[in-house]
Amino acid sequence: MADSPTDKPKRKPEILARRSVARSRLFHVEEIDLRFSNGVETCYERLVGSGRGAVIIVPMQADGSVLLIREYAAGTDRYELGLPKGLVEQEEDLLAAANREIMEEIGFGANRLEILGALTVAPGYMSHTTHVILAQDLYAKRVPGDEPETIEVVPWPLQNLTKLLLCEDCTEARSIAALFMAREKLMG
Amino acid sequence: MADSPTDKPKRKPEILARRSVARSRLFHVEEIDLRFSNGVETCYERLVGSGRGAVIIVPMQADGSVLLIREYAAGTDRYELGLPKGLVEQEEDLLAAANREIMEEIGFGANRLEILGALTVAPGYMSHTTHVILAQDLYAKRVPGDEPETIEVVPWPLQNLTKLLLCEDCTEARSIAALFMAREKLMG
Repeated sequence: MADSPTDKPKRKPEILARRSVARSRLFHVEEIDLRFSNGVETCYERLVGSGRGAVIIVPMQADGSVLLIREYAAGTDRYELGLPKGLVEQEEDLLAAANREIMEEIGFGANRLEILGALTVAPGYMSHTTHVILAQDLYAKRVPGDEPETIEVVPWPLQNLTKLLLCEDCTEARSIAALFMAREKLMG
Repeated sequence: MADSPTDKPKRKPEILARRSVARSRLFHVEEIDLRFSNGVETCYERLVGSGRGAVIIVPMQADGSVLLIREYAAGTDRYELGLPKGLVEQEEDLLAAANREIMEEIGFGANRLEILGALTVAPGYMSHTTHVILAQDLYAKRVPGDEPETIEVVPWPLQNLTKLLLCEDCTEARSIAALFMAREKLMG
């Protein structure tokens, strides 16, 4: 662990039992019994993930604009403006997954790909991790994805990030965090 | 919708059918059949939320440090460093919820509370919305919460946000996005 101010070791709760309590095609809910180091016992539910993780990509054009997408989101039942992202496939490394996703979703590949960090979505009840990938030196290349309709691509000047946050359809925490991380990296 | 560059109206997919497919104490999974405006039909799963939403709070001390917490997260099975947050209770407004959460989790209330924005977690399959609340002019006050162990409070200078991102236990997208939003508001 790097540089946390209070790095005394903290003893994790002990997982006493795990039970599968609900399962669908995509989701698997388990219940876990925990005993904290102070002796308190409790029971939590959490979603069991595939473990492969995901990538979210910040595709930068030479003019300093980032290529966002506007895509239908079934959870909120509306179109969301955010960064391209997707699950990492089996046997695929993170940078290859990132390059595949931008070819599918925005019609570009990237000659320069680098990992900026990793984000969790809801660590209290999901293990899911999304790796943030900065993509630069783009070239036009489209590969077919599994999207049900053409995805709208929206170039946005990264220096106008504050204004983007005023858009009602740009709300996804991972996109916003990743855009700030990229701005920090590129513009200091 | 404010200021999106391409504001042509987009016709949402039609929801043809909804079926409940799995349910536990906390989670409810439904399957929806969709028809996109181009005629393509597809079937998605999504988590049905309570609709009440959550708050995540950026509690600022007068010296420019933010009060983070380090708390066990069952989804990732480790301690996570991030902002205090919690669900809004019935009949509770967002600012009252924020003030209650910081009294429970860090032992402070705030005389100044303001909403900075709203974040979604995974809009593709969750409706859940978390409101970002900036809390200033803090005063010591603790109210009992339902935490199983004492929460460690970690002050962190907001101007050292970039360094915080290097901590392996600070990964939650909502915390990171909210911290950048607060820095943008306070430091421009």
